[in-house]
Formats: sequence, C-alpha cells, structure tokens
Amino acid sequence: MTLLNRERSQLWRLQQIVAPELKRFEAELAAVMAGGTPLVREICDHLQRGRSKRFRPTLLLLAAKHDGGIDDRAILAAACVELVHTATLVHDDSIDEAATRRGLPSVNRAWGDHAALIMGDYLYAKAIDALCCSGLDEAVHRLVRTTLLMSQAEMMQLELRRDLGTSEEQYLQVIEYKTASLIQTVCDIGASFNPAVDGCRGCFGDFGRQVGLVFQITDDVFDFLGDERHLGKPTGQDWEEGRITLPLIAALQRAPAAARAEFEAAIAERPDAPWRSHWPRVKSFVAAHGGVDCALRLARRLGEEAKARLEPLPGDGQRRLLEIAVDYVINRAH
Amino acid sequence: MTLLNRERSQLWRLQQIVAPELKRFEAELAAVMAGGTPLVREICDHLQRGRSKRFRPTLLLLAAKHDGGIDDRAILAAACVELVHTATLVHDDSIDEAATRRGLPSVNRAWGDHAALIMGDYLYAKAIDALCCSGLDEAVHRLVRTTLLMSQAEMMQLELRRDLGTSEEQYLQVIEYKTASLIQTVCDIGASFNPAVDGCRGCFGDFGRQVGLVFQITDDVFDFLGDERHLGKPTGQDWEEGRITLPLIAALQRAPAAARAEFEAAIAERPDAPWRSHWPRVKSFVAAHGGVDCALRLARRLGEEAKARLEPLPGDGQRRLLEIAVDYVINRAH
Repeated sequence: MTLLNRERSQLWRLQQIVAPELKRFEAELAAVMAGGTPLVREICDHLQRGRSKRFRPTLLLLAAKHDGGIDDRAILAAACVELVHTATLVHDDSIDEAATRRGLPSVNRAWGDHAALIMGDYLYAKAIDALCCSGLDEAVHRLVRTTLLMSQAEMMQLELRRDLGTSEEQYLQVIEYKTASLIQTVCDIGASFNPAVDGCRGCFGDFGRQVGLVFQITDDVFDFLGDERHLGKPTGQDWEEGRITLPLIAALQRAPAAARAEFEAAIAERPDAPWRSHWPRVKSFVAAHGGVDCALRLARRLGEEAKARLEPLPGDGQRRLLEIAVDYVINRAH
Repeated sequence: MTLLNRERSQLWRLQQIVAPELKRFEAELAAVMAGGTPLVREICDHLQRGRSKRFRPTLLLLAAKHDGGIDDRAILAAACVELVHTATLVHDDSIDEAATRRGLPSVNRAWGDHAALIMGDYLYAKAIDALCCSGLDEAVHRLVRTTLLMSQAEMMQLELRRDLGTSEEQYLQVIEYKTASLIQTVCDIGASFNPAVDGCRGCFGDFGRQVGLVFQITDDVFDFLGDERHLGKPTGQDWEEGRITLPLIAALQRAPAAARAEFEAAIAERPDAPWRSHWPRVKSFVAAHGGVDCALRLARRLGEEAKARLEPLPGDGQRRLLEIAVDYVINRAH
C-alpha cells in the first residue's frame, strides 16, 4: 500500500465509524448554508464542491458519539464548526492571495477580494447565528473565543512576515492560535454532548490542542516536501507568502553560525528580488541542516503527547479511534 | 445659530443627559479594546483617535437609563455595540477602497487591505467575546443576527453595483439590513436593561429601525449635497463606488421617459470611462428631477413614524429625548 493510500485509509476508517453521523452532518451543513442572495448562493455552491476532508467534523462526531448514539445538537455543532473553518479559509486565502483551495479557484480569485471579505463575514455570522438559534450558547462562547485567537494569529503572522528571526516559540504561538485552538474547541464541543465522558471532558480539549499543533506542523512540512500526496501542488507557498515556518526555523537554529550568516546575507543582499526567487536556496538550506526532520520529530513527540492525554478516558474503544486520528495527522507527512 | 451648530447642539443636548454613562462607556470601550499584538494596539489607538459621534451608544444608553440609574451591563453592551460598528466600518472601508474615516486615514489606506480584513475580524470577535464573558447571551444573539444581515446587505450592494435599474424597494432592503438593523438592535438591547419599559420593549426596536432608515437616507443625501457639515468632504463618493442611492433612484422614477433614456444612454455609451467622470451629469440629473427633495420627504415621513412608535412609552421624559434623536438625524440633512 502506498503512503498516500495508507493515509487515506486511516481517515476513511475513522469516517466509517461515524458514517451515518457524517451523512446527517452533510445534510445539516447544506441546511445551515441555505438562503442568501444569488451571489451568496453561487459562492456557497462553489464552496460545497471543494474537496474538504471533513477532518474537524469527524473529530467532533468521534468525541460526541457514545453507546446511546449521538446528540442531534452535535450534528448541528459539527456543521457550524465546518462553516466557521470555511469562513476563515475564505479570509485567509484573500490575505494570502491564494489562487486555489481544495482543488478549485479560491473565492478571491474567482469573485475578487471584496466578495471574499463579505463572504467570510457572512459564513461566520451564519454559523454562529445557527448555534444561537438552537440555544447552544456554550458552543458559541467557545467558537467566538477561538475566532478571536485565530484573528490574533493572522495579525501575528502579518507582523512576523519575512522575519528570519522568528523564534520557535513565536511560531508555536501562531500555530496554537491559528490551528490548534479550533481543533481543541472542536473536540471540547464534541465531548460536551457526550454524557459517557462527563468526568474527563478536559482531556478532549487537551488532546485536540496537541493534534492541532501536529496538524499545522505537518502542513508546514508539506510545503517543503513537495509530497506525492498533493500531485502538482507547488512547494514554497509559505515562503513566497512570507511565512517563516518550523523547518526553516529549525534549520536556522541548527546551522553553524557561518552558514546561517551566509544564508541570511544572501537573502538580504537582494531585498528587491521576488521573494520566490530565493526558494531553491531556502529549500537546500533546510535540507542541509535537517530542518524537516527536526520538525517531524517535534510533530511525533506532540502526537505521542496527544495520545497520552486520552489515558483518563473510560473504556478503550473511543481512545483507540482518536489514536488513529493522531496517526493519520502524523502519517500525512511521511 | 447655523444649521451645523443646531445639529451639533441637538446631539450634544442628548449626550448631556447621559454624560456620566458616556464617560463610563468610554472607559469600558478602552478596556474591551485593550490587549492584542503590537500592530493591533497601533491600529486600536488610531481608531480611538477618530471622531466618532457615539450616536449608537448614546441611543442605547438613552433606552437603558431609568429613574433608578443604569445597569452596568448596559454600559458594556454600549461599548460592544460601538466596537461591532467600528469593525464593520473597517471592513466596509476596505471594500469601498475608502481613503479616510472620521477625519483620519482609513485602516486599509494606512496599513493595507490585509491588516484591515484581520482587524475587522479581530474587533468583531473581541466585542462578541466580551459579551459572552459577561453572560449577555441575548445581546450576543441580537448582534450576531444583525451582523449576518449587515453582511447580506454588503453582498446585495455588490450585486446591485452600478445597476441603474435598482428599485426603491431594493434600496430600502439594503439600508434596512446595512444600517437600520444595527440601530434597531442597539435600541432593543438598551431597553432590555430598563425595567421601567418592560411592557413595551418592542417599541424601542421598532423606533430604532425607523431611525436607522432615516439615518442612512440622510447620509445618502449628503453625498449629493456636498453639505457644509463635512467641510472638504467630496460629494459623489457613493456614485463613484457604484452605489445607486435614493436621490438618484427617485430622480430616475420621476424623470420623463425621454430624459431618463437620454441619461441612461449617456452613461452606457462610455462604459470604459471612469465612473467618476459621469458625476456632474448625475448631480444635475438628480437636481433637475427633484431626487434629493423626494428622498428628504421620505426621511421626514419615516422620522414621524419613528416618533409614533414611541407613543406606548410610559411617561414622556424618555419619549421627548428620543424624539430629539429623530430630529437630530433628520436635521443633519437640512
């Protein structure tokens, strides 16, 4: 079995466990997204055609499912979480001037930045409004706090743009706010609908946070690997958009002082060159100093920590499933 | 007394009534806006230096104040409402490519569109998060629904951009969602903290809706009048940004068929000309066919309806104050 297939089969295996719930989730998501002006409809239809792997709703449903079934409200929450995630992607793509998303043109590319800005606002409000209408105030609180952190992360990214002095600590702070906070909230909300895990709801959030960190680190590694997973997906997008990520930070830390100085000087001496033109140098610098391996070691360590967070869970069925989720996220990058 | 002074004195008179509450509001707003990254701080400081007239918080406090004083939560709600309003202005200015706001460079002009997008998201989440933290879930519900309507209005505006066939009905729908819904919510939230008006809370929302319609119509009239109020503020901004507003819609309705056809042909025959270059023609067409007078007549009628909504209020002190608010909004345009 190829790596690509192995990865897909791990996510597929998890999604089989919650297949009926995912089907209800899809119907609920379509219902929450319904309505709006003709242009809203056009963009919603486009977004629905994108190939989302539904990773966040899958986690939420896995956390919420128990022997007695699943709370209807968990299905709604899963739809709203996916919609909030989609809203942030629409805004992020506009900020990053990304051309594609999930195999289709990005909203900013197809309809312009103004429509992308409005559409992100709209989808976000739509998701929170649906939770409000169902009285899910605690989920509202969690998601609003998370979106506050996500926008802070976007601002930090803007401030750290093209800053080769970005520290590992700053990087971890950004990815915690940008990615881990939502996955933490997703697991926490899922567990809140699961009476079987009443006593250890906090574990789910802690688990989600660690999984989220791993998720973002492996994503950032992909940008260096040019992996077989995303055929034709170009590497160096993060670098081109000015995001200094862990593989480069680690390489800069590990490189001898002279090599680091030489690298930094090469970037600095052509300040007006397109940032993209430095990419071959960046890639070979990271390879020479083991930046990717270092990032993957941290991802594996955080993945083990994620699994350890699950130890207090009663019974081992749900724990094993969530461990598969960790393996899925880590194996993406191998 | 000049018109400018009369207008200022009406708002000033109202703000004297709630002066201690407005002072607490300012402190609360600063507290809610505190924190964030260095760039967030820089932009918040800039926004705080802008000259907002605090019209929405003034209305909220007038609705909330009663003989026994004012609920602390009303002060917080006023701060959060102003912050949501500010967040929408930051996004709107980016969409409209506006250069200034409240006498200062707009956020998009000073820090770029990306920072403006993130900052709007941040301020909005910050405001809703503050309400969540204080358990003001009903205010959260109202504000989230309102921001959903506001983003729908932005999308409708985008769809109706440069559409000379925009109907009065479509225009009223846009301004109801864009402006009236927030002022309605502001009055409704204010009244929710006022035990003295328990039985007629709905009046406040209805009143706010009508006031909001008047507010937007007078704003749109300003864009034609080039009034003395905003010295140096250029006219024709709405037209330039492709917004077809009531004075032009009314003029198109009232003009003889031949004059309308001639006007439309003149715009259509130079499709590549900068939209701005048509402005002198638009202005004289609107003047020739009484578009501004027609818009002002509707504003006055809606203003009278706003006052009528207040009739069920117990006692007449609060009613008289809110009537002054209506006069302020109408007199802005005379």
